[in-house]
Amino acid sequence: MDAHRDAHADTTPDETTPETTPEDLEHVLAAARAAARPLARSTPAARADALEAVAGALEAARPELVALAAHETHLPQARLEGELTRTVFQARSFAAGLRDGSLTPTRVDHADPDWGTGPRPDLRRTVVPIGPVLVFAASNFPFAFSVFGGDSVSALAAGCPVVVKAHPGHPRLSLTTAQQVTAALSAVGFPDGAFALIEGVEASRRALTDPRIRAAGFTGSVRGGRALFDLAVSRPDPISFHGELGSVNPVVVTPAAWAERGAAVAEGWVGSLVLGAGQFCTNPGVVLVPDAEAFTAAVDLPAPGPMLNPGIVEGFVAAASDLGSQPGVRTAVEGEAGPDGAAARVFAVSAADVLANPHLLELEAFGPAGLVAGYSSEDELRAVLDVLPGQLTGTVQAGTDDPLAAEVGALLAEHVGRVVWNDWPTGVTVSPAQQHGGPWPATTTPTTTSVGTAAITRWQRPVAFQGFPATALPDELKD
Amino acid sequence: MDAHRDAHADTTPDETTPETTPEDLEHVLAAARAAARPLARSTPAARADALEAVAGALEAARPELVALAAHETHLPQARLEGELTRTVFQARSFAAGLRDGSLTPTRVDHADPDWGTGPRPDLRRTVVPIGPVLVFAASNFPFAFSVFGGDSVSALAAGCPVVVKAHPGHPRLSLTTAQQVTAALSAVGFPDGAFALIEGVEASRRALTDPRIRAAGFTGSVRGGRALFDLAVSRPDPISFHGELGSVNPVVVTPAAWAERGAAVAEGWVGSLVLGAGQFCTNPGVVLVPDAEAFTAAVDLPAPGPMLNPGIVEGFVAAASDLGSQPGVRTAVEGEAGPDGAAARVFAVSAADVLANPHLLELEAFGPAGLVAGYSSEDELRAVLDVLPGQLTGTVQAGTDDPLAAEVGALLAEHVGRVVWNDWPTGVTVSPAQQHGGPWPATTTPTTTSVGTAAITRWQRPVAFQGFPATALPDELKD
Repeated sequence: MDAHRDAHADTTPDETTPETTPEDLEHVLAAARAAARPLARSTPAARADALEAVAGALEAARPELVALAAHETHLPQARLEGELTRTVFQARSFAAGLRDGSLTPTRVDHADPDWGTGPRPDLRRTVVPIGPVLVFAASNFPFAFSVFGGDSVSALAAGCPVVVKAHPGHPRLSLTTAQQVTAALSAVGFPDGAFALIEGVEASRRALTDPRIRAAGFTGSVRGGRALFDLAVSRPDPISFHGELGSVNPVVVTPAAWAERGAAVAEGWVGSLVLGAGQFCTNPGVVLVPDAEAFTAAVDLPAPGPMLNPGIVEGFVAAASDLGSQPGVRTAVEGEAGPDGAAARVFAVSAADVLANPHLLELEAFGPAGLVAGYSSEDELRAVLDVLPGQLTGTVQAGTDDPLAAEVGALLAEHVGRVVWNDWPTGVTVSPAQQHGGPWPATTTPTTTSVGTAAITRWQRPVAFQGFPATALPDELKD
Repeated sequence: MDAHRDAHADTTPDETTPETTPEDLEHVLAAARAAARPLARSTPAARADALEAVAGALEAARPELVALAAHETHLPQARLEGELTRTVFQARSFAAGLRDGSLTPTRVDHADPDWGTGPRPDLRRTVVPIGPVLVFAASNFPFAFSVFGGDSVSALAAGCPVVVKAHPGHPRLSLTTAQQVTAALSAVGFPDGAFALIEGVEASRRALTDPRIRAAGFTGSVRGGRALFDLAVSRPDPISFHGELGSVNPVVVTPAAWAERGAAVAEGWVGSLVLGAGQFCTNPGVVLVPDAEAFTAAVDLPAPGPMLNPGIVEGFVAAASDLGSQPGVRTAVEGEAGPDGAAARVFAVSAADVLANPHLLELEAFGPAGLVAGYSSEDELRAVLDVLPGQLTGTVQAGTDDPLAAEVGALLAEHVGRVVWNDWPTGVTVSPAQQHGGPWPATTTPTTTSVGTAAITRWQRPVAFQGFPATALPDELKD
C-alpha cells in the first residue's frame, strides 16, 4: 500500500473518495470483456460516430464541466475552457483519422510464386484492438489527460473497451464527465461495457492485475508509474503498460543565442516555467546557459497562481527544498509567494557539479522551480547532454547562423521524444506528427506517443490473414 | 541460476562452452555504446550497403556454414541450405526497404495558424534507433533466428549496435557466422562496436541488465523468455524485451472440411506437425475436429528425423509424457522411433475435457507431438476458442461455402498474430505484410512482429522536431 500511496504523492488523498467495491468492479470488468468483441467488430465509421457523439455532449455540457473543474482543480477558467476545446478537438481528430483510414493501417502482399524464400501465399495485415484498456487519469489535465483524455479516446478509437480510474483530485468532474461519455456512447448503440469509471487505489490495483484488462495507460509521477508498471509486468500474463512519467525537459541556450537575445530568452524561459504554476509534464525544469549568474540576474519571477491541491503544494515545496540542498546548488531567485504560500524558485549550479551529480537531472519538482546550470565550454555542455536521462522534450535556443545549435538539436534527439527550436516545450499540439514520449524515465514505452493520433498504435495489435477468400476477410483487406 | 538454466531447457548445456569474461563483456558493451552515435547518424543507404555486404559474405561462405550447421544441429542439408537462403534474402529485404524509404517512416505537419488547438508549429516526426540491442539466438533456426537472424538484421537496419548471445546448441557455427558479419561490417566502414558475439548465461544476464543495452530480442521457451523478461523489466531503467515464446498454433477443422476432405486434412496436419521433427514455433500442436476418433484413425505417423540435440529430445519426451498424463487425454497414435529414440505421438481428448482443463492449450511439446480435440457442437468449438491463450498462428481448414469457417477465422484473429486459411502454419514468409507475434504467451509484445520487415519498428523510437530550420533538420525531414 505504501508504494501505491506514493504513486499518488502528487495528489491529495481524499479520505472521503469512494472506492469501487469488488462487486462493482467485477461487474465493470465482466462488461468490458463482453464489450470487447462488439467493439472490435464495429466499423471505424461507427467508432468515429461514437467519438463525435461524446465530443458533442462534452461541448454541450461545457459550462457545467468547466465550473466543476474550476472548483475542484483551482485552474483558471480560461485555461480550462482551452483544455476542454483541446479535448473535444482531440476526439474529433481521431474520428477524422478513422474516417479517412489513416488510423487503420493495412498491408497487402499478393501471392507470388517467385518470391525469394519460396512461393509466397496471399498475406494481408490489418490491426485489431488489444482488448479492454485501463486508463489512470492524471491530476493536472482534468479534461485532456483524464476521463475522456488522450488515452481513453485513442483506446476507444482503436476499438478497445475503456475502464478509467478516476483521479481523486477532481472526483465530481470525473463522475459527471463519465456520465456524459456513457450516455453518448449508449445513444449511438455502443454496448454497456464500452466505458466505465472506477474509483480508488485498491480497485485500480485489482483491475490492473485482472486478466480481462489487456493494456494500461498512465500519466503521472515516476514513482507512482513505476509501482503500477511493476504490477502490470509481474502478472502471470504481463501486459503493456504505457506510462508517461517524469521529465525535466532541458533547455540549452547557446552562446550565440545568449549574446543575441539573452534577456528575451530568460523571460521566455520563466514564462514557460511558471505557466499553469509549473504543473505541466513539459515544464522546462533545467536550463543550460553559458553564464548562470548573468542569466539568473535577468530572471524575474512572478507569484504563481493557485496550485491544484494542497498535496501538490506540499510535494512541490519538498521537491524544491531537496533540489536546493544538493551539492553545489544555490538558490538564485525566489519570487513572491502565491495564494498557497508556495513561491517560484530558480536555483543555480555549475555544469561541473551536474556532471559530478547527474542525479540532478532527474529531480523534477512538479511546480514552478527551475535549475540554471552554467557550462564553461562547449565540451562541458556536450558532456552534460551525454548523461541526460530520457526526456519528453529538449529545447535549443539558437542564435543566427549557429552551428552549435544544430549540433545540440541532434544531441538532444538522442534522449528526447520532441526537440523544440527557438520556442518553449509547454503547449503540446495535437496532430499526426506529434511525439509525446521518450526513453525512461520519460515513459515506459519509448516507441510510442501519448499525444497525437499516433497514440492509437498503443492499443492496436497487427494480425495477418494468409490465403483467405475475400468473403472471409475483414472489409479493409478486401481488394 | 536455476531459473536461467531452465531458460535453456530446450538446449544441451555444454559444459565446455566458453563464457565471455567480465572484462571482455565490458569491452563489448563499451564498444556498442560508442558505436551507437555513428550508427544512428549513418544513412539508410549506408546501412543497406552493410546488410548486403554481410549477406554476400554469408552466401560466399555457404559451403562452410552449412557443413558446420549440419554437424552441430543435425538438421538436414536441404533444410539448412533453404534456411541460409532465407537469411540472406531477409537481409536483402531490409536493405531494399532502407533504400526505398519504407523503413524510415516520416510525417510532416506544416505550421498552421488556424489549427483547432491554437496555432500549430511546424512539426516533423522521424524515427531514431533505440540504442544497443541484445539478441538471444535461438536453437532451432541456426541461421534465420540466430547470429545474423531476424532480430539482428532488423536492429542493424534500424541503426542499432547489436550484441548477440550465442546459442550453445551451435557454438562453432555462431563464432564463424559472427566472424563473417564482423569482417563484412568492418569492410564497409562500420565501427567496431556495431556487432559482437558473447557467450554464456552469466554474461548475457549481465548484458541484459547493463544500462548500455537499450532493448532485447529473444526467441525460445516461455519459461526461459519469462526469466529474461523479468530481468529486463526489473532494471532501474526498464527496457523493452521482445520475446517470441510459446504457442500450440491451433488448427480448426470444420465439419464441412472434414466431410469434404477429412483424410487429406489429417495427412496435411501430420506433414506440418512432423516437419523438421516438429521443432518449429509454428508447429500445429492442437487440432480441433468434429470427430477425434475418426481423425486419429486417419493419422499415419512417420518416424521423425534427428532432433537438434539430446536436451531437446529429453525435453520433448518429458513434455509429451506430461501431455499424455493430463485428465481425459489418451494416446491415440504412436509412430516408430526416430534415430534419437523419440517417436512422434498423437493424443486425443474431448473438447469438454479441454474446457475443464484449459491448461491443455498451453502445453507445448517442442517436437512432433499433437493433441486432437473432438468437439461435439459448434458452440463447444466456440467455447474452446474463447479460452484460447495467445498464439503465433491459428489455422482454419474450411469446406466449400462454409460460413462456420469464416466465423472461426474471425474468432481465431482475436487470439493470434496470423490466421491461415486452408494451409498450414509452418513456413513463415518473410515479407512486408507478415505478422509473427501474438498475445502472451506467444510473445511479450503483441503489438510487434519478429518476422518480416515490420520487425524493424521494435528498435525505432519516434522523435518530433518542432520549428527546426531546414539546415538543422535530419535529411529525411527536409522539404
